[in-house]
Amino acid sequence: MFPVFQTSILGSSAATPTSERHTSAQLLMHHNKFFLLDCAEGTQMQLRRFRMPLMKVNHIFITHLHGDHYLGLPGLIFSYHLLGRKHDLHVYSPPGLEEIIGLHYRVSQLRPSYEVHFHEVGEHEQELYQDKQLSIKAIAMEHRIPTFGFLFSEKERERKIIKENIKKYRIPYQKMPMIKKGEDLELDNRQIVPNREITFDPPPPRSYAYCSDTHYTESFLGMIRGADLLYHEATFLHDKAEVAREKMHSTTVEAATLAKKAGVKQLLLGHYSARYKDMELFREEARAVFPQTLLAEEGMVVTVGPQPG
Amino acid sequence: MFPVFQTSILGSSAATPTSERHTSAQLLMHHNKFFLLDCAEGTQMQLRRFRMPLMKVNHIFITHLHGDHYLGLPGLIFSYHLLGRKHDLHVYSPPGLEEIIGLHYRVSQLRPSYEVHFHEVGEHEQELYQDKQLSIKAIAMEHRIPTFGFLFSEKERERKIIKENIKKYRIPYQKMPMIKKGEDLELDNRQIVPNREITFDPPPPRSYAYCSDTHYTESFLGMIRGADLLYHEATFLHDKAEVAREKMHSTTVEAATLAKKAGVKQLLLGHYSARYKDMELFREEARAVFPQTLLAEEGMVVTVGPQPG
Repeated sequence: MFPVFQTSILGSSAATPTSERHTSAQLLMHHNKFFLLDCAEGTQMQLRRFRMPLMKVNHIFITHLHGDHYLGLPGLIFSYHLLGRKHDLHVYSPPGLEEIIGLHYRVSQLRPSYEVHFHEVGEHEQELYQDKQLSIKAIAMEHRIPTFGFLFSEKERERKIIKENIKKYRIPYQKMPMIKKGEDLELDNRQIVPNREITFDPPPPRSYAYCSDTHYTESFLGMIRGADLLYHEATFLHDKAEVAREKMHSTTVEAATLAKKAGVKQLLLGHYSARYKDMELFREEARAVFPQTLLAEEGMVVTVGPQPG
Repeated sequence: MFPVFQTSILGSSAATPTSERHTSAQLLMHHNKFFLLDCAEGTQMQLRRFRMPLMKVNHIFITHLHGDHYLGLPGLIFSYHLLGRKHDLHVYSPPGLEEIIGLHYRVSQLRPSYEVHFHEVGEHEQELYQDKQLSIKAIAMEHRIPTFGFLFSEKERERKIIKENIKKYRIPYQKMPMIKKGEDLELDNRQIVPNREITFDPPPPRSYAYCSDTHYTESFLGMIRGADLLYHEATFLHDKAEVAREKMHSTTVEAATLAKKAGVKQLLLGHYSARYKDMELFREEARAVFPQTLLAEEGMVVTVGPQPG
């Protein structure tokens, strides 16, 4: 089975919301796990609006402590409490968030009914999470305050045994794990059946790099190289490259250039300045440099890697 | 002219938002001034959604520091900064809010481009604001943490001089201010024209009492007596009176009973628990006790006092 790996856009606006767009948040689904990427004001309402499994989020990754990336977190934490959540919540962010949330607890004289674990992100390539299938690492961005993107990488999967061969060679159950790892099969008559003849390649591991907010930099090119999907902020059209530099944000062309240099398979733009109404120029400018570009918009679901089926 | 006096509902849900309802906020308009009452998460989006004059709000009144009443404030303050606001903002709340907002400034390394003045509310009947036409006072609620409602009272207006009498008695310009205050007119021949003959009554001053969150109490009955409009929280239907007592909230019947005892002209219910989908029973239960009951819902505009015209 090819596990589901997709991200749902909850907010695509930079800095301030508009009447059309919310500020940054995405819900990443991998297999049966849900990860929240940034949690701007209104994220809990967006999760409800799009009928997403609010309660199944156990890990929240906050890139940095500008309001448009975390101001929905206190409300979400309180709502979980009021909804009777019992299972732990893990929050990953640059330092400072635990103090903020703690102060909100104190003034409201409320402590959640469940444990919230705060994990400080402070280092490039720091591994923040792993399970059997997935690993999540921090990617250092270059922004006005400490900021980290996140790389979601599937682990190498085991080889699949071709069904007919199980009968044909009477492969014993105990030998299967090693065959799946790539070992050849030794038959009772000492004959060797090469692994390649009885297995097929697993689907290649997929990866998603979430990079926001940052000015143009190639400093993390190594980490995102070949990613199936790169989300990169594009706050401005390219005629505002000067403003972008000043505010340590990126333009369409810069995001697309990085996607091209990193050889990613698909680019997803977002974090648009509230000044833009019509997004067509974003698409045009980016696609001129990197044709496989998508524009994030609220409610959109983007699959990481080849479409299943 | 009868100045506009109305409140617009931005959120009607208690504690947690639902897919239909936001948590507490109202925009009160009096003449050409705008006041925000509570500022839950998403309030800035609701103001945009209903095309309300975001930038014209200069005074924000926060009843208490439970998340569902103030978590939209940091985002609104940051958005004002990003939108280039220059004029002062006044925020009134029980103690603690300045520390919270200050911490958000610190972690984001952002300070607004305009002045935010925090005013601590700590006393029943404390006058928080006044202008030529309006006075705003704190009303002590009884809730789990320090909580204050707000009473918006128009000042007594001057008497109106009946137009025809100005010509008939050749009332000199200099005498008008005193006549408007109720003085009789002395003619050149020493004859006295009683004030009542040359003026008519101004419209009676109107008042709006915003009471949330609180359990049932008659402790502030004196302050809200005869109000044109009373907003009173009704978190639960009356079969949950026990739960309401425990959590220091009110039921439909309790809110309606208070409205009746206080002799207010109209009651507006809101702050409904997220458990309720169909609001019809709220209307029925409250109207059985106090027929002039309205139910708050997002986007609704309620006029304080008699309908103009």
